[in-house]
Amino acid sequence: MIVQYEGTDYVGWQVQPNGVSVQEKLEAAVFLVTGENVRVEGSGRTDSGVHAMAQVCHFDANVRMPADKFAIALNTRLPRDIRVLFSQETDGAFHSRFSAKRKTYRYTIQLGEHSDVFTRNTALHVHTFLDIEKMNAAAALCVGEHDFSSFMSAGTTMENTVRTLYKSEWIKEGKYLHYWVEGNGFLYNMVRILVGTMLEIGCGKLPIEAMSNALLNQCRENAGPTAPAQGLMLMRVCYPDFDTREVLSCDS
Amino acid sequence: MIVQYEGTDYVGWQVQPNGVSVQEKLEAAVFLVTGENVRVEGSGRTDSGVHAMAQVCHFDANVRMPADKFAIALNTRLPRDIRVLFSQETDGAFHSRFSAKRKTYRYTIQLGEHSDVFTRNTALHVHTFLDIEKMNAAAALCVGEHDFSSFMSAGTTMENTVRTLYKSEWIKEGKYLHYWVEGNGFLYNMVRILVGTMLEIGCGKLPIEAMSNALLNQCRENAGPTAPAQGLMLMRVCYPDFDTREVLSCDS
Repeated sequence: MIVQYEGTDYVGWQVQPNGVSVQEKLEAAVFLVTGENVRVEGSGRTDSGVHAMAQVCHFDANVRMPADKFAIALNTRLPRDIRVLFSQETDGAFHSRFSAKRKTYRYTIQLGEHSDVFTRNTALHVHTFLDIEKMNAAAALCVGEHDFSSFMSAGTTMENTVRTLYKSEWIKEGKYLHYWVEGNGFLYNMVRILVGTMLEIGCGKLPIEAMSNALLNQCRENAGPTAPAQGLMLMRVCYPDFDTREVLSCDS
Repeated sequence: MIVQYEGTDYVGWQVQPNGVSVQEKLEAAVFLVTGENVRVEGSGRTDSGVHAMAQVCHFDANVRMPADKFAIALNTRLPRDIRVLFSQETDGAFHSRFSAKRKTYRYTIQLGEHSDVFTRNTALHVHTFLDIEKMNAAAALCVGEHDFSSFMSAGTTMENTVRTLYKSEWIKEGKYLHYWVEGNGFLYNMVRILVGTMLEIGCGKLPIEAMSNALLNQCRENAGPTAPAQGLMLMRVCYPDFDTREVLSCDS
């Protein structure tokens, strides 16, 4: 399934004891439709306040309903901030997380003196001057294969911290500044720490070289702070035979 | 002042006993900043669930703070779904309602099979086919001076029901269909009834001639239903010496 959600009112994708998650809402809806208690597996977790234009997830169930009817059936049981945009049956070899090859995230900053009411939950408002050329110079340094462990939340353990980024750039559209990043995988909080580092570079607190240093010398302290969750959106997930952008014909 | 708000959680612009209004929130913020109980007068009322990209309002108060500082001072006392984008001092002759010459509204429809999460409160989702050419033919009939009393909520009394529309057209942008309408004034629910009528024309329930008939023969029953509030947004207000679009350099 391809699922869209606004993360504002959720503790994140994953089921947690301390609040309502997107996963839990989807599993409750599947139960109402099929009568089965299933685990809905996502392509990856998103944190509290992080959104998805196109998250991919799957579940195993024995049901008679044609798989393409699930989208409409689940939407009538889901809150309005979660929508199933597409559903289909797959073979048993498909796994939304393990089969994923590439993901694209977008982080949105709203420029200007005052916060915009209509993007208050989906963009980070920054009213100070940002040097976009410097931010793009730093973004370009991240393209390719790197050990990104400086950009992983302290305390996280992960065997392999090497990831490859295919795209990493800032694009200005009117009063919005979007960071587009595409990679074969992301460490915990990686996009938000990359953005936090580039915001420090953009406002002059850190030089561009801070990015090269953090990429070469693996230590969380070499990178900038973690940018707030609300600007982050999972835009696209690619599989060997399946790309959310092509299925939805969206502009990500 | 130029004020932006999302109307979802309000009973509308105007103070009412049955819920929280935008006007009341602004007046409370002015009280916190100035210590004065003022009436904040808007360029016009908006209904519950209707939004404003640029509403204009004014109040009279004896204060020492420079008027251009009010935007920031009020925003720290306002909820996040109401923002003051601009503030300035005017002479006593200015009145946000009586001095207004033209207003522009936009009504947004989201096309496609499923409702989009991120515009669920600011667009009307329509999943059936709409004939945009027919809707634009009907929209064009409304341009100019007409007695719009067929497009006024039944039970409303108004001495002069003649208004002039300068623009009335549907524009498609990706999966969104926007109705832009500019006029020298609007009757109660006029834009929503115009949209409701054109939606019936677009889906084939009414012929284009229903619009000509409703414009010629004044009776509420000759027009279509009132379209839901959430798609409507006040985009621009023009005064002899002041145009919200120029002040904000926005795209409306």
